[in-house]
Amino acid sequence: MPPVAGVRFATAAAGIRYVNRVDVLLALFDEGTTVAGVFTRSKCPSAPVDWCRAQLKGGSAAALLVNSGNANAFTGKQGRQATETTTRLVADAVACRSSQVFLASTGVIGEPLDASKFGAVIGQLVVNATSGQWQNAAEAIMTTDTFPKGAAAIARLGSTPVTICGIAKGAGMIAPDMATMLCFVFTDAPISARVLQNVLKQGVMDSFNAVTVDGDTSTSDTLLAFASGAARARGAAKITSPADPRLPAFRKAFDAVLGNLAEQVARDGEGARKLIEIIVEGAVSKSSARKIALSIANSPLVKTAIAGEDANWGRVVMAVGKAGQPADRDRLSIWFGGIRVAHRGERDPTYDEAAVSAAMKRPEILLKVALGLGNERDRVLTCDLTKEYVAINGDYRS
Amino acid sequence: MPPVAGVRFATAAAGIRYVNRVDVLLALFDEGTTVAGVFTRSKCPSAPVDWCRAQLKGGSAAALLVNSGNANAFTGKQGRQATETTTRLVADAVACRSSQVFLASTGVIGEPLDASKFGAVIGQLVVNATSGQWQNAAEAIMTTDTFPKGAAAIARLGSTPVTICGIAKGAGMIAPDMATMLCFVFTDAPISARVLQNVLKQGVMDSFNAVTVDGDTSTSDTLLAFASGAARARGAAKITSPADPRLPAFRKAFDAVLGNLAEQVARDGEGARKLIEIIVEGAVSKSSARKIALSIANSPLVKTAIAGEDANWGRVVMAVGKAGQPADRDRLSIWFGGIRVAHRGERDPTYDEAAVSAAMKRPEILLKVALGLGNERDRVLTCDLTKEYVAINGDYRS
Repeated sequence: MPPVAGVRFATAAAGIRYVNRVDVLLALFDEGTTVAGVFTRSKCPSAPVDWCRAQLKGGSAAALLVNSGNANAFTGKQGRQATETTTRLVADAVACRSSQVFLASTGVIGEPLDASKFGAVIGQLVVNATSGQWQNAAEAIMTTDTFPKGAAAIARLGSTPVTICGIAKGAGMIAPDMATMLCFVFTDAPISARVLQNVLKQGVMDSFNAVTVDGDTSTSDTLLAFASGAARARGAAKITSPADPRLPAFRKAFDAVLGNLAEQVARDGEGARKLIEIIVEGAVSKSSARKIALSIANSPLVKTAIAGEDANWGRVVMAVGKAGQPADRDRLSIWFGGIRVAHRGERDPTYDEAAVSAAMKRPEILLKVALGLGNERDRVLTCDLTKEYVAINGDYRS
Repeated sequence: MPPVAGVRFATAAAGIRYVNRVDVLLALFDEGTTVAGVFTRSKCPSAPVDWCRAQLKGGSAAALLVNSGNANAFTGKQGRQATETTTRLVADAVACRSSQVFLASTGVIGEPLDASKFGAVIGQLVVNATSGQWQNAAEAIMTTDTFPKGAAAIARLGSTPVTICGIAKGAGMIAPDMATMLCFVFTDAPISARVLQNVLKQGVMDSFNAVTVDGDTSTSDTLLAFASGAARARGAAKITSPADPRLPAFRKAFDAVLGNLAEQVARDGEGARKLIEIIVEGAVSKSSARKIALSIANSPLVKTAIAGEDANWGRVVMAVGKAGQPADRDRLSIWFGGIRVAHRGERDPTYDEAAVSAAMKRPEILLKVALGLGNERDRVLTCDLTKEYVAINGDYRS
């Protein structure tokens, strides 16, 4: 992944939860950097989510501090104080306003976060910050992730190439209720906060909002986008209107980065062995197709069947039936790995068990449902439900 | 459990899916038996569900045939034909109308059900039918259940005692979208079909509709109630009005049977080691409390934490937050096993870790959430999510 001009990173081990584990990421932004964000829809959001939401209206960012190990969620007044202490620490160290400091925390819920620990590392972080560093940055924000997640794309604003790079962490507590997990996207494109917010909001719909691991929505889900505007020095005028003719090309590249990162999150679902792509077509509306696809994607019975490499389309019927959306049993057709196993409400008599069995052994499973009611479709990504998911989550806190 | 006058049972091994396994239950009812039913809300119901729904308007029952091994769901035209063949077979054997024969099927979805297999056993079933037989009846309808489920109560209609007995099967694909699983309730009370339907519909709200194992709603969920009216011979006049002063006592006993059976279903959830009772209070409405309780009950992260005997109230906060119902983080309090672990949005500093750990080791876990917003409450039962659930469902079909 190429560096993004105007963006620098440093990481440190602050001992937030474990000793000698890199658990803090600082990103520093050149002056003029704009910011946009989308957050969990949880009614019980974390303190950093509350903080970021409130600062977004300023539209200006100088720094981002992310920690793993402690989510600073359900920490009450102490939690709010921790965000204030942290942002003041950072603002003092980088000479900016507190309102230009963005925060994200991931880890255990309900434990007070000791913000003073950031004080011990912030000076060194500011000194060390350099461009690039994607691998280190992506690794610093991991919790139960098994691999660091990053994606990059180049877009042209007129004749000026701009870079879009993102990192994400996910794995558990992933459900499509806005941006799931933590994701940060950085670009050197010059773009107003308002237009960046529009790009982000639209982009999230078919990327992070179309991914589910377990249907559980985190209190901390955060997706922030930062645009340093450094490409202005190379001749790109600032995008200030959603009607700017250069925007579609930028949006396409931006969406590709979000889509790529969202897929990595599904692929790395806790305990997952298979990436499952669910396509629902023939629906009366895209939103109806989305609801049915999510009903399938979140069904423990469908997910365990796929973990068992069993093309159990009966459970897909069940999940379609329970979605509460228009569906007609006798028009329903279902494919696993491109092979039609059920057709118009009955088992497809022509399908080859051996071919389906072979398809189910692959690490990527395509599951398609045709409702036969309309012309709308949607797509959702998820993963299988394995004993490892239960093991990971049965003794996470203790 | 005492016999119910006017109701007889017989069971047989018809080889529906496995050889030499008891898989058919026939119940025979005396003339004048009334019937009521509630069914899955799935948009893809099984053929027997369609059949029963259509016959309910007649309000009269002569026989009930239940099979395990095959759900006759998503079997298209063949499925409808199987219900017609089966009911004709039974009607001929017991000399009643097909519309007085009720059906339920449980087992694999999407495989054609060979109704001719019932023909080989129906004659013997009719000859063998005797009263009592609860153990045999409850065992005949089991699939992945680990124990047969039955409950009984006695009510007084004026001075006449009447008996209410029920059997159920559950275990997986259990979610509160009407009657989950199969459940059959029998009484000798004389009660019109219309009033019985009213009693059943109300009774299911806080019993079977308040139970969830995995949030997956079966295509076949069926709860039927049969009232033989045999107690009329002992002086009980028929209940024909919902305003009958004798009805509340009957309803109370009927609800106790439903509640008892529903709890057994939760306790025997697939792979379950713990029964979890979730109480949400301080809600703005009962329906809001129900939604929040179900969000907690269906959360894989809450269920795996409890499987791990971890009082992870952070995940409870998460599940409250994602329910989409009114909630205020800073008013939320949470109890495990009667011990308050979180109070008004923060960890309760006074709670004793050792006491909570001990409470989490018990086979029954009480989880209470106080929202602090209103005066309404609700209660839901569920079970923990273990590796055994994944194992059971990862190779059920194959």
